[in-house]
Amino acid sequence: MKKLINRPEDVVVEELQGIAYAHGDLVKVHYNPNFIVRADAPIKGKVGVISGGGSGHEPMHGGFVGMGMLDAACPGAVFTSPTPDQMLEATKAVSGGAGVLHIVKNYTGDVMNFEMAADLGGSEGIEVEAVVTNDDVAVQDSLYTAGRRGVGITVLAEKISGAAAEQMRSLKEVADICRKVNAQGRSMGMALTSCIVPHAGKPTFDLPEDEMEIGIGIHGEPGRTRMKLKSADEITEMLMEPVIDDLPFKSGDNALLFVNGMGGTPLIELYVIYRKAYQIAEKHGLKVVRNLVGSYITSLEMAGTSITMLKVDDDLVKLWDAPVKTPGLRWGA
Amino acid sequence: MKKLINRPEDVVVEELQGIAYAHGDLVKVHYNPNFIVRADAPIKGKVGVISGGGSGHEPMHGGFVGMGMLDAACPGAVFTSPTPDQMLEATKAVSGGAGVLHIVKNYTGDVMNFEMAADLGGSEGIEVEAVVTNDDVAVQDSLYTAGRRGVGITVLAEKISGAAAEQMRSLKEVADICRKVNAQGRSMGMALTSCIVPHAGKPTFDLPEDEMEIGIGIHGEPGRTRMKLKSADEITEMLMEPVIDDLPFKSGDNALLFVNGMGGTPLIELYVIYRKAYQIAEKHGLKVVRNLVGSYITSLEMAGTSITMLKVDDDLVKLWDAPVKTPGLRWGA
Repeated sequence: MKKLINRPEDVVVEELQGIAYAHGDLVKVHYNPNFIVRADAPIKGKVGVISGGGSGHEPMHGGFVGMGMLDAACPGAVFTSPTPDQMLEATKAVSGGAGVLHIVKNYTGDVMNFEMAADLGGSEGIEVEAVVTNDDVAVQDSLYTAGRRGVGITVLAEKISGAAAEQMRSLKEVADICRKVNAQGRSMGMALTSCIVPHAGKPTFDLPEDEMEIGIGIHGEPGRTRMKLKSADEITEMLMEPVIDDLPFKSGDNALLFVNGMGGTPLIELYVIYRKAYQIAEKHGLKVVRNLVGSYITSLEMAGTSITMLKVDDDLVKLWDAPVKTPGLRWGA
Repeated sequence: MKKLINRPEDVVVEELQGIAYAHGDLVKVHYNPNFIVRADAPIKGKVGVISGGGSGHEPMHGGFVGMGMLDAACPGAVFTSPTPDQMLEATKAVSGGAGVLHIVKNYTGDVMNFEMAADLGGSEGIEVEAVVTNDDVAVQDSLYTAGRRGVGITVLAEKISGAAAEQMRSLKEVADICRKVNAQGRSMGMALTSCIVPHAGKPTFDLPEDEMEIGIGIHGEPGRTRMKLKSADEITEMLMEPVIDDLPFKSGDNALLFVNGMGGTPLIELYVIYRKAYQIAEKHGLKVVRNLVGSYITSLEMAGTSITMLKVDDDLVKLWDAPVKTPGLRWGA
């Protein structure tokens, strides 16, 4: 296992210490229970937006805490749901009296624990709404999921919902925006290599040197199919066509195109993928008006990519363009 | 060879097309000869700042073109110097009458070709100054270098020189700032795995499953030593101590600490490294007042990290903080 770590059981806390040293101007790190919170939280009258999930997907979610995006993020152990007490304490830390939105990726543990935290928050007088993301068109039901998995759209939902909250919109409005983003977004991913969970010390799955897996999950959950390696253009088609087929899209719609790296894939390859994805979108009459290219929702050192398409209207574009100031995503501030 | 590419000979042009599709608001891509230029270049009266080098180090340099950083970047083939005609055309494209600064990493081909381009630019009436970066303390002379290699400091030099040019400082002032950044910066890197050059189709070097290489170059050039894998903390010490020993630093100085990923290393590990690097800097009495954590100067899919320390004064900090708006580095705009 080739990793830049100390003891596997210390990876998450040491990462949090690194984040605290590097980004103390933007965020505070709370230990026991672990969460990362915006340095100026809570903000009176503003809806708090929080998310969380297993570690190993960085910069999601901890790297997205800051002005215009998340108010807090709860990191679990690697690929393991955070606990309800983390989520409850984060909820309380960001509660400014206008309610708190939980953005939850659709994995059984995350959904269950966030529900429990919402109940506990409610009994302490904090109004909580939850939105579960489930944008992965690859498979129905999976190792850790009933229904579809929540993947790339989560990054876009956190940005756009965070911008809506920053405009002091109500909890219902912010939650509706988040639901709309999820409803209008679809994703699919693929892997060239496996990730290695530090505790396990060996690849999550075996993939021969001449094979790839299409439709992989962000924890290495099985995808649709394994096959011999193909060209970047063929791979991009295999991801884009199911995404576009599944979208409530019609020719002439505007879209945000997000080409994501899984952690071990270099940026030069993501632009090769973006090129073809853009051409396919245009061929279908979809106008790509915004984009994101980079490794934002990762699977440790997995080599591979995922593509997310989000149908956008003027309101969503304005919220996307609004200033954001986080360690992982920043513009206009 | 597991890569998301089409034909190896098309990687760079297809990457450039992807960049053109994704970032047409910030940059224009020129083909034959290939260069990426700021969308609003040339800017009358502003010093043009350009850089370039082999592809495979993305986002450097093409991802750093935009307001407050580079005016243009010339990408060569993977790990191959761009040609003088690329550099000359880029120089002409960004010349606003105040001269052009060439920021050149110390590799023999890059230095020779940029010198030729500077001569050609001069004969067309454009005043050119060149600054060669050589911050890598690992080895003296190397596969492609006489003297020390230019590595991580190049990213910081491009940001800081670009900010100085944006303030309409003179060519001499911008070049002096760039020289100062190089003189006050030191770096060292290491690899857990090799990169694979697309044309070669196989790893540049072999590294057994239980070994790493300390002092590696960004093209896989030999480092100081190979040894059994160590912990992240031990590795960080092996990089930080030579960097600090070599710096013209004394206790109480302010520093910018840059922890860079080589392309295949996930962000979670970079924060583990950053944590220890920060602690070592503080132990030496150096105050880390700014930082950068992420994969900014990469070696394709190589897993590994490099650390750069830059001694900063108030002027350098202000230039670092100044707004920048590029695909790869962005804040305040």
